[in-house]
Amino acid sequence: MSSLSTGPGPTTPPPALPEGALRVVALGGIGEVGRNMTVFEFGGRLLIVDCGVLFPEDDQPGVDLILPDFRAIEDRLEDIDGLVLTHGHEDHIGAVPFLLRLVPDLKIYGSRFTNALLAAKAKEHRQRPNLIEVREGERRKVGEFDLEFFAVNHSIPDALAVAIRTPAGVVLHTGDIKLDQLPLDGRLTDLAGFSRLGDEGVDLFCVDSTNAEVPGFVMPERDIGPVLDDVVRKVGQRVIVACFASHVHRVQQVLDAAVRHGRRVAFVGRSMVRNMGIAADLGLLNVPDGLLVNLDQAGDLPESKVLFVSTGSQGEPLSALSRMARGEHRQISIRAGDTVVLASSMIPGNETAVFGVVNGLTRLGANVVHQGNAKVHVSGHASAGELLYLYNAVRPSNVMPVHGEWKHLRANGELAVRTGVAPENVVIAEDGVVVDLVDGKATRTGRVEVGHVYVDGLSVGDVGESTLSDRLVLGEGGFIAITVAVDTSTGRAVTRPTVSGRGFSDDPKALDAVLPMVEMELARTEAEGITDTHRIAQAVRRVVGRWVADTYRRRPMIVPTVIPV
Amino acid sequence: MSSLSTGPGPTTPPPALPEGALRVVALGGIGEVGRNMTVFEFGGRLLIVDCGVLFPEDDQPGVDLILPDFRAIEDRLEDIDGLVLTHGHEDHIGAVPFLLRLVPDLKIYGSRFTNALLAAKAKEHRQRPNLIEVREGERRKVGEFDLEFFAVNHSIPDALAVAIRTPAGVVLHTGDIKLDQLPLDGRLTDLAGFSRLGDEGVDLFCVDSTNAEVPGFVMPERDIGPVLDDVVRKVGQRVIVACFASHVHRVQQVLDAAVRHGRRVAFVGRSMVRNMGIAADLGLLNVPDGLLVNLDQAGDLPESKVLFVSTGSQGEPLSALSRMARGEHRQISIRAGDTVVLASSMIPGNETAVFGVVNGLTRLGANVVHQGNAKVHVSGHASAGELLYLYNAVRPSNVMPVHGEWKHLRANGELAVRTGVAPENVVIAEDGVVVDLVDGKATRTGRVEVGHVYVDGLSVGDVGESTLSDRLVLGEGGFIAITVAVDTSTGRAVTRPTVSGRGFSDDPKALDAVLPMVEMELARTEAEGITDTHRIAQAVRRVVGRWVADTYRRRPMIVPTVIPV
Repeated sequence: MSSLSTGPGPTTPPPALPEGALRVVALGGIGEVGRNMTVFEFGGRLLIVDCGVLFPEDDQPGVDLILPDFRAIEDRLEDIDGLVLTHGHEDHIGAVPFLLRLVPDLKIYGSRFTNALLAAKAKEHRQRPNLIEVREGERRKVGEFDLEFFAVNHSIPDALAVAIRTPAGVVLHTGDIKLDQLPLDGRLTDLAGFSRLGDEGVDLFCVDSTNAEVPGFVMPERDIGPVLDDVVRKVGQRVIVACFASHVHRVQQVLDAAVRHGRRVAFVGRSMVRNMGIAADLGLLNVPDGLLVNLDQAGDLPESKVLFVSTGSQGEPLSALSRMARGEHRQISIRAGDTVVLASSMIPGNETAVFGVVNGLTRLGANVVHQGNAKVHVSGHASAGELLYLYNAVRPSNVMPVHGEWKHLRANGELAVRTGVAPENVVIAEDGVVVDLVDGKATRTGRVEVGHVYVDGLSVGDVGESTLSDRLVLGEGGFIAITVAVDTSTGRAVTRPTVSGRGFSDDPKALDAVLPMVEMELARTEAEGITDTHRIAQAVRRVVGRWVADTYRRRPMIVPTVIPV
Repeated sequence: MSSLSTGPGPTTPPPALPEGALRVVALGGIGEVGRNMTVFEFGGRLLIVDCGVLFPEDDQPGVDLILPDFRAIEDRLEDIDGLVLTHGHEDHIGAVPFLLRLVPDLKIYGSRFTNALLAAKAKEHRQRPNLIEVREGERRKVGEFDLEFFAVNHSIPDALAVAIRTPAGVVLHTGDIKLDQLPLDGRLTDLAGFSRLGDEGVDLFCVDSTNAEVPGFVMPERDIGPVLDDVVRKVGQRVIVACFASHVHRVQQVLDAAVRHGRRVAFVGRSMVRNMGIAADLGLLNVPDGLLVNLDQAGDLPESKVLFVSTGSQGEPLSALSRMARGEHRQISIRAGDTVVLASSMIPGNETAVFGVVNGLTRLGANVVHQGNAKVHVSGHASAGELLYLYNAVRPSNVMPVHGEWKHLRANGELAVRTGVAPENVVIAEDGVVVDLVDGKATRTGRVEVGHVYVDGLSVGDVGESTLSDRLVLGEGGFIAITVAVDTSTGRAVTRPTVSGRGFSDDPKALDAVLPMVEMELARTEAEGITDTHRIAQAVRRVVGRWVADTYRRRPMIVPTVIPV
């Protein structure tokens, strides 16, 4: 079992950073999967790696996105030398438009595909970010920081790892990484480069933890090709393949299978159409002339001559695939004998939604192929076996697992220890925990406050924990509203109270007992000479709350309104 | 791919049942996992198999339990000859107390352990059901139905399958089943008995579909023993094992490991304490004298001398384990080096909650052992390989997959076909679909209405789809309430409107624009001579709703109250 330093770590603010030392703090992405954002500080200057979003859980209802918490840097925006983006996934670039609201001229460094995806996103926000293209093998000074970029393999093209050299030491940040030894585009993770850096000496290694608990190695992406081919070959009717809209190599293999079996292809879903357009423009996706059709044209083709590539692989309720599963899609109605392939993982938390889609499609007669019954997905993140290769190539002095929940960080740290990293040099740091690299030793020295920043509709940050807690109460039990106008000189009710409930009961008589009860209570408060509307409201809340708990054993929100007249 | 009849099936009521025919209809449990209840009808009489509950999903907020829909039988309660319980899990017995409210003297047939669990449950409802004990090998006439019971192996002791003989043919219902060939209690699934029944001829075979998609065979329960032993042996501090409170054999293996390594055991969680007491009383659980201690005694023992067996393996937020993970348990605070074993599956839908518990425990320093990193769980349901054995033993004429979502039913039906059952004799029937066995052929002949019956607190059925839909709106966006008193003779507001929001925003100024907007609208309605309170409320709802959509792009519930004075 582990000999790592465990437990959540320091709770107090960090000391001043010693001269010549490097500070690292994640404002998101550690202790959770999503909203990756790591801030490096040296010589009074800041470098940020990634700025992504997190998708909400059940206990964050109504929230669209969760952002990293910028508070720790919002007084130091002038000190930012740049933002490095490791790749174009939402959990790495999705919050950039919100950071740009604070720093419109932020220098952003990313690969060609990453920058193209960010540019498309920024356009929707009516922003024109300052994008600087970098590529693997390149070394570039960004303010105080001397950067070097390395090719890495992931479930999106053109991903990069970044080495950050400062006088305090050398940091290597993997971004999201795996070590596919037969990548579809021939672009290997640069293990040789990592070894070279290891020879130079890596003082702090920030490593993707997502699959640290999974033993062994991720199967090559290209091994999915024959499986997809086999599915498409056998099907006489329509084939619909759902996968992530940024997984260019997966889509390439679907297109290849379509070509081989004489099917035309229609992209379904806004982000799929947009991203595949970008990938084709950049030469990352090979689309033979005449292969693509639009949805209307697809409807005119024989069922055996068409294949749809769709979004919705996570069961998103508004996606095309979910609408098909409910029989509500305008152009594609599922029939017995259609085949749907979910060429995707199931992100934790999405299981119920995905299973709902699978069941809906099955009920309508479709054959559903998914990772549970065929090898139609491989992960984009290194398993334990690959992580060992990384540690042995880099031979770091200190390790800081990133990109994962606690269980992933811990498992990753234990792998580091097995390759010879001293346990006391493995720092497990959740969001906000400050790690200082001083004289070659990384230590957790303090904590800055990192909360959840919610985006709901057009507004950022006004929905907080108090609103969410009200939503949870309302969502569980609805509310009972009681309204009465009271003469504040006498405390006497000048109207009969109105009582109404929403989300409480379908029974129209469910609240019949409330009105007389409230009237009796108002008579009591009047008799006691209570004229303060707040106190009257409290009294009403108390009697109605007690009644509903006793009668129904439920806890709706009780909302008394006493109007003073 | 499949040649089964697919699609959701008939939508119209069934025809009258021909004389000499048998009718089968599930009022729950098919097309979903939970609330199993199947009604068999012959000669005007009814036999029910199982009566369980379903646990709610995210889109059913505030609901405690979902019951089978009794409407199809509520006019025919006099016709019920009996209720057979196949085993004591909640999804098979949990709704019995609610059926007993309609038929207090219902004759209930179950095995010793099943009846003991039901008696304990009924006691909490202040009911004393009419329980009749049956056992494997027994044949018994229940009204029109000639029953025979068979031992089956599952994740709870004393489970039964039931054969139902009527002049219309022989039905075999597996209940929940697997074919552990080395069961801990030596009680094998009676495959020999099924073969004998197959020789006689089985006309309709109702088969557990839960794991029909899973290839191969379930590992024997007893193979978990050495894994648990190994964990307990290596740990120097406390060990906490969480599993289902009815999984007597799993708990037995934990107790055995504790005994071997000199640890005392404390049961944690009300249902764990209760069920293990029952199991020990019935001789199903072997508890050496002096092994058990209570929680207070456990706290006084050295950490290496104690083991806790706890509920909470599904991440239930109020369970002991969840409280430990949040650091809120009164008696057990997790420390670095403690080991927690989740000796359990993850029921679909519970993933987020379970991962939350794992992360919380890991963050506090515990080592967490779970089915993802050790063989500490096996399923209670037959995998595809075992189902093939069943089909080949029984050789049924017709097959009706039960206990599963559509994907499971379909996969199970395809297994039947592969063993030689004619595809047209495999009936995929979701809840409410009526299956008639006429002249040896099973056909879907119609549909009765089966909805979700919700239990929320003390009340059954008053929470319906309209209440849930309001709860979903309130849970996503909260509400904005506007209240004003209006003189209905003139249409003039006699108070200033009050505006309040809950679950909308943490920003106290978020609704500042609403009051002037409502006052302007009230001036307009007054000027137009509108005096009807309902129309005034509609006008207010419209302007506020439009404003909030434009300004915030959100959809809170708008609740105008116009009090007539």
